[in-house]
Amino acid sequence: MDDRASELKRRVGAAAAELVEDGMVVGLGTGSTADCMIDSLGVRVQAGLRCIGIPSSVRSGERARALGIEIGSFASHPEIDLTIDGADEVERGTLNLVKGLGGALLREKIVAAASRRMVVVADQGKLVDRLGEHTPVPVEVSSFGWEAAALRLGRLGARVSPRRDRQGGLFVTDGGNMILDCAFGPIEDAAGAEAAIRAIVGVFESGLFVGRATLALVAGPGGIVRYEAG
Amino acid sequence: MDDRASELKRRVGAAAAELVEDGMVVGLGTGSTADCMIDSLGVRVQAGLRCIGIPSSVRSGERARALGIEIGSFASHPEIDLTIDGADEVERGTLNLVKGLGGALLREKIVAAASRRMVVVADQGKLVDRLGEHTPVPVEVSSFGWEAAALRLGRLGARVSPRRDRQGGLFVTDGGNMILDCAFGPIEDAAGAEAAIRAIVGVFESGLFVGRATLALVAGPGGIVRYEAG
Repeated sequence: MDDRASELKRRVGAAAAELVEDGMVVGLGTGSTADCMIDSLGVRVQAGLRCIGIPSSVRSGERARALGIEIGSFASHPEIDLTIDGADEVERGTLNLVKGLGGALLREKIVAAASRRMVVVADQGKLVDRLGEHTPVPVEVSSFGWEAAALRLGRLGARVSPRRDRQGGLFVTDGGNMILDCAFGPIEDAAGAEAAIRAIVGVFESGLFVGRATLALVAGPGGIVRYEAG
Repeated sequence: MDDRASELKRRVGAAAAELVEDGMVVGLGTGSTADCMIDSLGVRVQAGLRCIGIPSSVRSGERARALGIEIGSFASHPEIDLTIDGADEVERGTLNLVKGLGGALLREKIVAAASRRMVVVADQGKLVDRLGEHTPVPVEVSSFGWEAAALRLGRLGARVSPRRDRQGGLFVTDGGNMILDCAFGPIEDAAGAEAAIRAIVGVFESGLFVGRATLALVAGPGGIVRYEAG
């Protein structure tokens, strides 16, 4: 990543961290822009802000803890005030998302679903007219019987590839599951696709986030643009 | 279990094993009646029947293998001809089921969903007018964030208890997940309940099997009664 892109991520992360109010329970997303938000939130906490972070990945939890952010759990905080997370694609207008290329989609969605508000942080390159334009939809599935789930995802029209790790073996999520990357091409009906994917036995969750984000902070050459879901 | 009950399980297991035809791919269920079916199938295989078993649990796979039944996987056989499995409750008329008190519900449902036909084996005490009369509905959930899923299951009207193991710790499934036992009482709309439960983020599967079994072999004092789904 060049310096300019890094600087934009830092700025959008900082802008998102400003949305956290004293006493909030905050869902902490996963990814490079979410990392920038966690760093800025850490600065605010060191300056006296009180908040409790619910991380969506082991990595984000460790980063936040190292910065002095208090980490909570669902046992103590099953309802979250605000979640801030990145995305791989953000649909213009709806703010529907594709997430999970980083592999943490299940936890990210569990955190988002438990949240009253979700703010997405991204750079301009993530904006699309239709989800699926540039990226496959990651689908987290049971390792047992994943071949049967892959067959059914194929029947929904996707080109399905089991995700691999760097050594070429099957990628394993934090929860011990597998990811099937499903290339659908542009998706006209994201809500319908989300429901159809999730109805398949053996599918635990998909990376389609429909109707969850209410605000997007998007970094571009002209600065940070705010988009409200409409 | 008394001798009479054991004898009935053996008879219904044997009757189910008779449904397997030469060359079939057979889903092997989990539980004491399924065990009896596997034993009878083993006798038939030793007498020359060829079939491939897809077990729904580690335990059933080991039992079948020890009897000489060839074990396949979803990689080689993502479509199954016939699955034979037990149930905790069988609804009269519909043959809708509650399953998973043994903890293998996710794998059992993955096997059932991949099957062209499902036959349920049970004793008469499992027949109910409405599912949920005697047993809670087991729901397999992500260990991460299970408290938020429990909250939502409670809002559907269930009394929710995380399943414990014999040592009093949280029970962990073969897939590394948790089970929430959800006492709904008699369920009027099983299909609606199944969809509502499964739509909760963090829920992987429920023990409601709606529209899956086409035939039940039920052992009672008068012998084995066949029920077709109607």
